[in-house]
Amino acid sequence: MSRQAVDLQKAIIAVDLGGTNVRVAAFLADGRLLNWQDQPIQAHKGPEHGLTLIFESIEKVLIESQLPLQAIGVGSTGPLDRRRGCIQNPYTLPGWADVDIISPLKSKYQVPVAFENDADAAALGEAWMGAGRGVERLMMVTIGTGIGTGFVLNGKIYRGVESEHPEGGHILIDLNGPACYCGARGCWESLVSGPAIANFARQQTLVHSGYLFNQTQGAAEKITAAMIFAGDQAGDELCVQMVDRAGRYIGLGLVSLMMMLLPDCIVLGGGVMRSFERLKPRIEEVIARHAVIIPALKVGLQPAQLDQQAGIYGASRAAINLLEELLA
Amino acid sequence: MSRQAVDLQKAIIAVDLGGTNVRVAAFLADGRLLNWQDQPIQAHKGPEHGLTLIFESIEKVLIESQLPLQAIGVGSTGPLDRRRGCIQNPYTLPGWADVDIISPLKSKYQVPVAFENDADAAALGEAWMGAGRGVERLMMVTIGTGIGTGFVLNGKIYRGVESEHPEGGHILIDLNGPACYCGARGCWESLVSGPAIANFARQQTLVHSGYLFNQTQGAAEKITAAMIFAGDQAGDELCVQMVDRAGRYIGLGLVSLMMMLLPDCIVLGGGVMRSFERLKPRIEEVIARHAVIIPALKVGLQPAQLDQQAGIYGASRAAINLLEELLA
Repeated sequence: MSRQAVDLQKAIIAVDLGGTNVRVAAFLADGRLLNWQDQPIQAHKGPEHGLTLIFESIEKVLIESQLPLQAIGVGSTGPLDRRRGCIQNPYTLPGWADVDIISPLKSKYQVPVAFENDADAAALGEAWMGAGRGVERLMMVTIGTGIGTGFVLNGKIYRGVESEHPEGGHILIDLNGPACYCGARGCWESLVSGPAIANFARQQTLVHSGYLFNQTQGAAEKITAAMIFAGDQAGDELCVQMVDRAGRYIGLGLVSLMMMLLPDCIVLGGGVMRSFERLKPRIEEVIARHAVIIPALKVGLQPAQLDQQAGIYGASRAAINLLEELLA
Repeated sequence: MSRQAVDLQKAIIAVDLGGTNVRVAAFLADGRLLNWQDQPIQAHKGPEHGLTLIFESIEKVLIESQLPLQAIGVGSTGPLDRRRGCIQNPYTLPGWADVDIISPLKSKYQVPVAFENDADAAALGEAWMGAGRGVERLMMVTIGTGIGTGFVLNGKIYRGVESEHPEGGHILIDLNGPACYCGARGCWESLVSGPAIANFARQQTLVHSGYLFNQTQGAAEKITAAMIFAGDQAGDELCVQMVDRAGRYIGLGLVSLMMMLLPDCIVLGGGVMRSFERLKPRIEEVIARHAVIIPALKVGLQPAQLDQQAGIYGASRAAINLLEELLA
């Protein structure tokens, strides 16, 4: 490719592939979102069906944009094998393992295709057009079904050895905590992901009346994290305690992140962090108490701004970064 | 300064300033150590006395080198205020706080002076001429009186917000662990620094006979980490258990580092890690069990190679990096 700049008159296609939905968008390189669409991926129908859906969506948003295509970025639920273009997640996308989904895009559109883990894509999206704009060292922590981290350094995704994606959601917090599939006990995700919050409540609740008991008619297995946050809003004492506890554990994980990396800003996203304002005082309390030897107060704490769109913004920015590398 | 390369015919002076000794060396930019000397800093005599000692040492190694000077690098026990050139450590260098030790060097020698935390300097030294040569992402962990971390990314020291030094030795490991001056309970340093290892033994030992009891005539306060490692070598059961425990906690901290950053290589230095070969199987066991979702086996574990010289190598490399920045 000859030496030239990223083209502001050509489209970038962004794909955000989750276990449930796939979102496809057309962007300009200056960050303008031109149009997008979202549809169920129907993961059980397999990767061939999924790829057909993705191709159809791309055609649609591209035609609407009325622009020629210059690059594609794909953000996907991981773990990924980025070199081979495969998603290795038997739980959310069974049957997709070892299927190269990147080469078909490259060969059909004849443009560079970037491929990133969704936590990294979200971080890149927030760094580009969200809560972390202009920040040199941005850590994004997504707390939802799991806890994912993405570290963006000078506008580029930080990668580990052999370009592998680190899993900062599994740093250790409490050796006496619950067992996690990561191999540890009491890692961050095992303590305060959405399911972990609900799980803890399930163990507490049967002996109580109150909000959760009433909502579930005592069937503890029906408790969700969202229900606990709703109970907290309603002033239920047990729910208030559990949300305070969640804030405390979120804060403890952030203490370790700060000790390790002292980023300029930590952006907090995901379902649990929709309650950012509620959790913030608890989180700040823990940080103030536990991180006295580092300038923790210089580390900004921000709620994510792009919400569900972080993935497509990030996938788009990943495509631009790839173009810039190729053009350099 | 005009655009030119770092001069291979001029000396770089490296200063490694600790609470007990100051080491001064002359280097060539290709990493050759020309000569060095080490003397007690006599910290209680204050910074003026200390600076005189440093100036005398510099004169001596510089004359011996028979080369003109092009830059100075200082690595020092922290915390530092790098902008103001001050050491803010009331314990190891009392009376030095708020005294600018960098400006006198600049004004006397009229060359650029780099100033780095000792953990960062050691990491840079190992990355340049030690166990981490050629590594893209090098984490150095120094386990001695405390636990210090230095992260070298593409040959440059990683810095946190406003260029502050992160304190990876204080990541959380066990909420039920000992209280630490960092504000937390059960941070890494509180569990497995040299003093932490000794402290744990002091609490176990009075009810035992055996190696430690015999060495101290039952005066538990005399137990040191070195004594425990010696007892382990001698086959004392309690000491063996405590060294195994130390290996386990070292491993747990490394699990969190790997989850967060997946470096290519972790270099382990400091007094405790002189027993690298003894601790290695315990450390590897913990990593293999706890870090199953990341490619932890790709992360190399290496003993430090430069030992007590890591600081001067790193200070020298910091001076070269500063020269390169200024010449760029």
